[in-house]
Amino acid sequence: MQSVIEATYHVRGDAQSIADRARAIAVEQSVEMPLDAIDDAYVNAEIVGRVLDLRDLGNGTFAVRIALAAATIGNDAGQLINMLFGNTSIHDDVILHDVELADELVRGFGGPRHGLEALRQRVGARRRALTCSALKPQGLPAEKLAALALRFAQGGIDYIKDDHGLADQAYSPFAARAEAITAALRRHGAATRYVPSLSGDLDTMRTQIAVAKAAEIDTVMVAPMIAGLANVHRLMREHPGMAFLAHPSLAGSRMAPPLLFGKLFRMLGADAVVYPNYGGRFGYSPETCRAIARTALADWHDLKPSVPVPAGGMTLDRVREMLDFYGADIMLLIGGSLLAARGKLVAETAAFVDAVKAYPYG
Amino acid sequence: MQSVIEATYHVRGDAQSIADRARAIAVEQSVEMPLDAIDDAYVNAEIVGRVLDLRDLGNGTFAVRIALAAATIGNDAGQLINMLFGNTSIHDDVILHDVELADELVRGFGGPRHGLEALRQRVGARRRALTCSALKPQGLPAEKLAALALRFAQGGIDYIKDDHGLADQAYSPFAARAEAITAALRRHGAATRYVPSLSGDLDTMRTQIAVAKAAEIDTVMVAPMIAGLANVHRLMREHPGMAFLAHPSLAGSRMAPPLLFGKLFRMLGADAVVYPNYGGRFGYSPETCRAIARTALADWHDLKPSVPVPAGGMTLDRVREMLDFYGADIMLLIGGSLLAARGKLVAETAAFVDAVKAYPYG
Repeated sequence: MQSVIEATYHVRGDAQSIADRARAIAVEQSVEMPLDAIDDAYVNAEIVGRVLDLRDLGNGTFAVRIALAAATIGNDAGQLINMLFGNTSIHDDVILHDVELADELVRGFGGPRHGLEALRQRVGARRRALTCSALKPQGLPAEKLAALALRFAQGGIDYIKDDHGLADQAYSPFAARAEAITAALRRHGAATRYVPSLSGDLDTMRTQIAVAKAAEIDTVMVAPMIAGLANVHRLMREHPGMAFLAHPSLAGSRMAPPLLFGKLFRMLGADAVVYPNYGGRFGYSPETCRAIARTALADWHDLKPSVPVPAGGMTLDRVREMLDFYGADIMLLIGGSLLAARGKLVAETAAFVDAVKAYPYG
Repeated sequence: MQSVIEATYHVRGDAQSIADRARAIAVEQSVEMPLDAIDDAYVNAEIVGRVLDLRDLGNGTFAVRIALAAATIGNDAGQLINMLFGNTSIHDDVILHDVELADELVRGFGGPRHGLEALRQRVGARRRALTCSALKPQGLPAEKLAALALRFAQGGIDYIKDDHGLADQAYSPFAARAEAITAALRRHGAATRYVPSLSGDLDTMRTQIAVAKAAEIDTVMVAPMIAGLANVHRLMREHPGMAFLAHPSLAGSRMAPPLLFGKLFRMLGADAVVYPNYGGRFGYSPETCRAIARTALADWHDLKPSVPVPAGGMTLDRVREMLDFYGADIMLLIGGSLLAARGKLVAETAAFVDAVKAYPYG
């Protein structure tokens, strides 16, 4: 096999059957047919998946490393996920744990255009964590969301993202929202960035980006598992001036979060990756969250680092703990817990921002 | 709440905590913030999700029925799945079990343009099961795939789909494949249809459909969970003459298969839905498979029925069992097991076709 993808699956099984199960995955994710019916020399040598390694992890789980041909992928992100995990995603004994890709494949996808340093520069931050909040609840008209955004900006927040439920609904159309919110932020005059959420098919998302650009927005959010990886990749390549936050909606699957967020979303071009932090409303462990952040920031095929954005039920009283845990290379997102301050939203936001700025980064 | 979506989740939990957990899901899938911080009357009355019903299913599982506002969706299939299951997909104690949608929402999406009867008419079948096989392995050049397709057609098969791993690879580009295979089938002269697999972003899939149309192809396959539901819906609405098979690649998730394949894919416009049959390489139970087929075919908001296509390790010796189980309104897909006949592929295909035609449909 010439150019190789090495996929590592974690498979529940026993020592007697694991070798067969590993071979079955290698076949499923490549030629998907009985090998003794293949008489083509090229297919046998270059396309059929191969088990490279089996390792007993204990607790009835095995790490199975499989070589897949890069020739099956081209540079299509949808086809990448199809060949890595398409049919095997339906087997509930298997997790897609990690992937190593050829350098030219990773560089071909391109990675973030902006990444950590550019997202800092845009808001005038030096080496510190970035701050973010979310516009909610959906159902509010654009003017009320703009009033909220203004108060976040008055509190000094760096980034204000749409709640991922905000789309192009009648009560707050995308264009009306983009115009009202950016107008409010311009009048205020701070560097605070509004990050609207894209939705719909590729054409609709392109139209939304055009609207965003017209409103001088330079950062948008998209949910790759809903939009489709290939469409997200296309958008990211088409709009080099735009920074992209990736949202984890519909990412609940048997793909390891550090791989999905830290490698795959980053490889497509996500400048920042939102994920559920430990100790909030979701069940990720501290170890998983640390692995997501480290993977998104790691030296990897010369890609720019993606900013980790732990979120999902975060609170002001956890800022110090999170900075101790993650360090400076992070964007902290506190949404509902700031909004719960209601009449004191500006002060609560300022307290969040001050806590992040005052932290003694090492 | 005016127009309502009723989503039923199956949640692992206990009697003490399930009411709180249900309310948390209703909030997560609607406003995603503390309710006591919402002072907007419209949002409180019309947007906040509401728990309608809790039912103990035994074994530590509860059915939780939640009302979500149709106003949050518009007619965007991506936003539909976002509001039904976006963040909750990340919680591993929850399955999205079923959804009831307002009639105007379902009709707005449109459903299959063709469905069961049209797929029968295209291949001259009366009231019997349809037959299908798959072109594999990937890695073969277009000419070898065309030679295989010809032999399937000589055996009398109705539909020949691409293996879902076939994309637009250098060894068998989409256009070369479409031309070579349709040329071979035209020379043979039977009604057999070639069903190429679409891949890539929305623009790429549109280009592939144009190539397919130029080759007089009238049926294509797409994997909605990879392409993104909104993009698939757009394609299906843009090409009313084209019939679409939906492939389950990347559909391994905590969404119940009868809902995903039989309702959601069908509602977008899938004329047929491929899914892993019981007793093959995948773990779906007979009950799950029966529910998928019944849901895809059921009277539901006046949509045309989607053809159920059980697949994934099916064999000739199971044809009678499968027809006993499913009846006439089905497309049987036998792939690798026919190809394993190698030199006797035409005869093996003919035996499959004969068994399906000779079955005493009631």
